Order: sequence, then C-alpha cells, then structure tokens
Amino acid sequence: MEETEKRSGRGKPRDENLRKTILDASAALLLESGYRRFTIEGVAARAGASKVTIYKWWPSKGSLALDGYIHAVTDSIAFPHTASPRADVEAQLTSVILAFTTTASGRAIVELIGAAQEDPDLKRDLVARLIQPRRELAAGAFARFLGWDLATRRNDLYAVTDQIYGAVYHRLLLGLEPLEPSFARRLIDFWVPTDN
Amino acid sequence: MEETEKRSGRGKPRDENLRKTILDASAALLLESGYRRFTIEGVAARAGASKVTIYKWWPSKGSLALDGYIHAVTDSIAFPHTASPRADVEAQLTSVILAFTTTASGRAIVELIGAAQEDPDLKRDLVARLIQPRRELAAGAFARFLGWDLATRRNDLYAVTDQIYGAVYHRLLLGLEPLEPSFARRLIDFWVPTDN
Repeated sequence: MEETEKRSGRGKPRDENLRKTILDASAALLLESGYRRFTIEGVAARAGASKVTIYKWWPSKGSLALDGYIHAVTDSIAFPHTASPRADVEAQLTSVILAFTTTASGRAIVELIGAAQEDPDLKRDLVARLIQPRRELAAGAFARFLGWDLATRRNDLYAVTDQIYGAVYHRLLLGLEPLEPSFARRLIDFWVPTDN
Repeated sequence: MEETEKRSGRGKPRDENLRKTILDASAALLLESGYRRFTIEGVAARAGASKVTIYKWWPSKGSLALDGYIHAVTDSIAFPHTASPRADVEAQLTSVILAFTTTASGRAIVELIGAAQEDPDLKRDLVARLIQPRRELAAGAFARFLGWDLATRRNDLYAVTDQIYGAVYHRLLLGLEPLEPSFARRLIDFWVPTDN
C-alpha cells in the first residue's frame, strides 16, 4: 500500500499519526507473532505504510520491534506517585510482573534481550531507549521509598534496583519459579528505609 | 577422524577419557568462537571423535555447548567453605564477576541465555544442569552467611540469591555498568545476618 506524505512543515501532525499507526502495528505484530517472525514487511502491510517510510524512521527490524514494545508497555508499567512511596514501588513492580506473566509482553522482552546478545545495535537501543530510562525512574522511586538522596547515592540505588528488577528478569529469562504478583511484595519486603 | 570404542564393560574408562576430550574441545571452541559459530562438526574435528559418538551423548549443539561451558567454568566459581561465611559468598561472587568480565565465559553465557529464548530444550537444560544446581549452592552459602534455616526459608533464600546473581546477569546481559569485582562487595554489603 502507498501512503502520501506531506513534506512541508504542515505535514508534521500527519507524520505523528502515521508514526503512531506504525507503532501500533509493530506492537501488535510483535506481541502476536513473536520477534522471530516479526518483519518490517509485516508491519508495513498491517499499518498500510510503505517500507520506505518505515526505514526513514527505523533503520532495522530490531529498532522497530523495540519501539513497538515500548509503545505497548510504557503506560502499564508507569511509576505511581502517591503519599506512600512504599506502595508506589510495590504497585509498579506488581504491574511489571503481571505484564510479563499474563500478557505477551513477557515473551517479547525475553526475545528482544535474547536477540540483542547477537545484535549489538539492538542491545545499545534496548539499553538507551528502554532499560536506562526505566532504571532512572526506578532509582528515583526507590530513593523516595528508602529515604536515600538520589544525587549522592545513585550507584547504591542502581545496585538496589538492578537486584530487584534483575531478579524478575532472571526468573523470566530462565523460567524460574515462582514469578507471580506476590513476588513483588517478597522482594520489596527485604528493603527497609533508613533513618537519616 | 575415527576413534575406536570398546563396547564391553572394560570400555568405561576409555569412554570417560573420550568424554573429557570432547568436553575440552567443546569448551575451547565455544570460548574461542562464540555460540553462533559453534558446531558439532567443529567439536568432532577438534576432539578427534566421530559425530556419531558425540550424538550418542549429546542430542544437540546446545546441549554440547552447555556441557562444555559447565566443564570450563565450574572449578572457577566453586563456593569456598571457610570459617567466614561472609567471606565465602563475597569471594565466590567476585570470582563469578571476574570470570564473566575478564574471560570469554561472560560472552558464552549471555549467548547461551540468548539462544535459549528461541530454544526451549536449551533453556530446560540450562536451568537443569547449570542454573538450578548453582542456585542450590548459593542458597546454602547464603543460609550460612545470613543465619537463615535452609529448610524453612528456601524461598526467601532463592529471592535473595536471585536478586544478587540476577543483578550480575542483568548487567552482563545488557552491558550495564559498572560490573567489576567491587560490585560483589557492594551487593553483599546490603545483606545483613539476622540474630535468631
């Protein structure tokens, strides 16, 4: 299929709509078919967009699948910000575990991490566009929960959050049990705010 | 190349030698060339063994590479057992980080975990032959360190060790920094024995 694109400045909103259509199609194809059967052709057909347009914005299958994944999951794993920082981190971690275990996003993320072991560009994008931004958000949320200063204890906060999310990814990647919502509380319970 | 095999009971020691030769060759090929270029043919040529013999013991490339990996790394990541359980877990975790970051075994294990995301047999073998046995050893070592009863707190001990080793695997799989020997102490320092 062919789409027409405005190349003038007035084309911007149309570009945004097309971009969203392509991301919707990318997410749907990745979650339905898995990364191995995911193709740029498949996304183009589903979105009614040309491959040329897709390649203008995404240089590879990996980058398109990754952005589709991020587009699909970001809202469901946001960090809430209530009066209880403890409840916030537990609620977010519970959402992550539920997304990984009750939707196709768990399979999609392990496939992306798996493929990234043989694809340095995908690994770089995965970290830059998904993992490191999530790590920053988690460090901020755990700084509030633990009462640690984010600026001076950033490395400690990464060490904590890499343990907690690392445990979840480890179980997901290897199929280790149990990985269920109650694991969020079990993990969080190990960590106790310090008085300082 | 052809090897002759005794099929009588007296063949056992010869089988053991051949098995070790094949595992040495598997480990060397995996660590030198990586999993993608690892082949059963390559191991057969290097070991001077027939493919028939290799297939008698290993049903697939994945199982042969995995056993080669285990054969290569097990000694270097053993848990010491001294009068200081704290020193034991820190020494072992330091050894794991050093092996992952200063030898080819880091690349090999992320490639195996990556390939396992598309290969359920490899994932099952990886867990059964490497991850779960190591997890048991870690749970026992952390039970001594933390003063927790292994029989009644096994799930808590898995949750602790999956956090600590999960953090290391997470950084290794995604290339997150820092992953250096001092990270072992930083991780262990978060965990404090309970008096009970």
